[in-house]
Amino acid sequence: MLRDPVVAIAGVTGAVGREFIATLNKRGFPVKKLKALASSRSAGQTLGFRGETITIEELREDSFGGVDIALFSAGSSVSRKFSPSAVKAGAVVIDNSSAFRMDPNVPLAVPEINGRRIAEHKGIIAVPNCSAITALMPLWPIHQKNRIKRMIISTYQAASGAGAAAMEELVASTRANLAGESFTPTVLPHPYAFNVFNHDTRIDPETGYNEEETKVIKETHKIFEDDRIAIGITCVRVPVLRAHSQAITFECEKPISESEVRRLLTNAPGVKVVDDRVRNYFPMPIEASGQDDVLVGRIRRDLSDPSGHSISLFVSADQLLKGAALNAIQIAELLPERVAA
Amino acid sequence: MLRDPVVAIAGVTGAVGREFIATLNKRGFPVKKLKALASSRSAGQTLGFRGETITIEELREDSFGGVDIALFSAGSSVSRKFSPSAVKAGAVVIDNSSAFRMDPNVPLAVPEINGRRIAEHKGIIAVPNCSAITALMPLWPIHQKNRIKRMIISTYQAASGAGAAAMEELVASTRANLAGESFTPTVLPHPYAFNVFNHDTRIDPETGYNEEETKVIKETHKIFEDDRIAIGITCVRVPVLRAHSQAITFECEKPISESEVRRLLTNAPGVKVVDDRVRNYFPMPIEASGQDDVLVGRIRRDLSDPSGHSISLFVSADQLLKGAALNAIQIAELLPERVAA
Repeated sequence: MLRDPVVAIAGVTGAVGREFIATLNKRGFPVKKLKALASSRSAGQTLGFRGETITIEELREDSFGGVDIALFSAGSSVSRKFSPSAVKAGAVVIDNSSAFRMDPNVPLAVPEINGRRIAEHKGIIAVPNCSAITALMPLWPIHQKNRIKRMIISTYQAASGAGAAAMEELVASTRANLAGESFTPTVLPHPYAFNVFNHDTRIDPETGYNEEETKVIKETHKIFEDDRIAIGITCVRVPVLRAHSQAITFECEKPISESEVRRLLTNAPGVKVVDDRVRNYFPMPIEASGQDDVLVGRIRRDLSDPSGHSISLFVSADQLLKGAALNAIQIAELLPERVAA
Repeated sequence: MLRDPVVAIAGVTGAVGREFIATLNKRGFPVKKLKALASSRSAGQTLGFRGETITIEELREDSFGGVDIALFSAGSSVSRKFSPSAVKAGAVVIDNSSAFRMDPNVPLAVPEINGRRIAEHKGIIAVPNCSAITALMPLWPIHQKNRIKRMIISTYQAASGAGAAAMEELVASTRANLAGESFTPTVLPHPYAFNVFNHDTRIDPETGYNEEETKVIKETHKIFEDDRIAIGITCVRVPVLRAHSQAITFECEKPISESEVRRLLTNAPGVKVVDDRVRNYFPMPIEASGQDDVLVGRIRRDLSDPSGHSISLFVSADQLLKGAALNAIQIAELLPERVAA
């Protein structure tokens, strides 16, 4: 681990930005100095960090002098614009956006899965898409023992993935709905109160897949280093605040039993089995919220595959933590000590 | 159609009971006389029907004298207890509960799929489970052309499937959540506000499947008259009031194209294609609510099956209408005129 690094957070006022700070504190991550960066709108505001009052500065190309680790979560275009300056200034960028994920020079890292790739970075390390992390955390221990050749995933995604403004829109539109008042959405494309809708990313007019789905497919291939895994996926928003859930059915190369999967997942780091059939108690997003672990349950044979190669399960994970801020800080913890330049 | 029947509604104060009345009116179903039946708690209350005030009577074994059609939606145990008396009194029972669905002497009818079975009844006709109806309406026209041999379904189910009290609990618990107040659920097993949870039916401790999932599997086999269809399914409640949604991936015996599926669904009765990739506009439960049609969209190749035999789609349908009351009244419309006894 880097000793007492200077840490910059780009996008500090966003939903993930706030969780960067909470996670640094929760994990006792050593920070020599924190630079809080955001758009000019937020510059001049202050925030408390370990007893100090820190003034938020405008994110600029010259913001990174002396910075060792730059945590980015302000969208792809911001990452594209400012990461090069951060790298040039000598910082390691840990980027939560999709800007660099598929760049062959950028490790796409989930520490529990491919942490060894982190040391190969050339200045930038990417945090995978939150839906990819949520699905792959429980699938990796299985894939290592018995290659997963096919996955079919349906997501139940929270507002937080679209940012703090989307979380506020869910609350405000639900309040309006309950009061019988009209509400015009401005952040998301459809009314969110008591509704479910296709993920709010662009749809490829040819394939019919939305960008979230395409990201999960491509990122799974990169993280698992296996381009042949066949993936079908439907990404859907549900009126939940901050944890994503997924119904996953996967098919292995060899036969696999429910008890083998349960055993592998019980011993998997970062995964918690919540699977009580008698009490009807399984992963739920309100319980995953605020937890570091990916909750997994409803582990059972996929009845549509009589060959015994397929298992179904249900997962919930905090989109802002393991899906974003926590995964980024875990990457920072694995950064090798640098030799003085 | 029966001429001017006397119609009884058992469970008239429930969520489906109210929709029975609305649907009779909307479709101009001829009713000589309406008998409104409910538990003793509701007896004595009144309701308006076609300009008349009708007093709700307690549902009893002797309630069915002179009744031609008895619409039941008061739960399985009520159907089991009172249907025999209704049949004995000469009524045709159209039952919305699961009590008789798998009885080989009882047609399990979705008029658009197997309406011809209705005439075979021996006094009772069952309305299928709402999730089964929602899935099978768009799959039937495809299955007829190119046998569906495998389905994988993830549901996004509304409160209404658990009755009016569950709908009220969703509203009340969301109100409490927004006010920062605590709320103890009494109808559903888990907090519903901004949450997602496994379907609230018993889980088979051996297989891990909940009863809703088992119903969809068995009822699909009976309705499609094809026990070999392999079905994997995950049934989940989402905080939506009255329309169920589903992400469905299915595999056909022969190759099938996206355009062929779109063409078949565009011409299917009771199905409406809502599939606009440019506008990101697809089926949503708030739009399916109050509509008779099953909305279907996101029609696209399942990328996890390179053989070209599989398609994915997303559906939303009003659980109280096509999932229950509408399907029942459609069955009533197809009842053959009886020869005088």
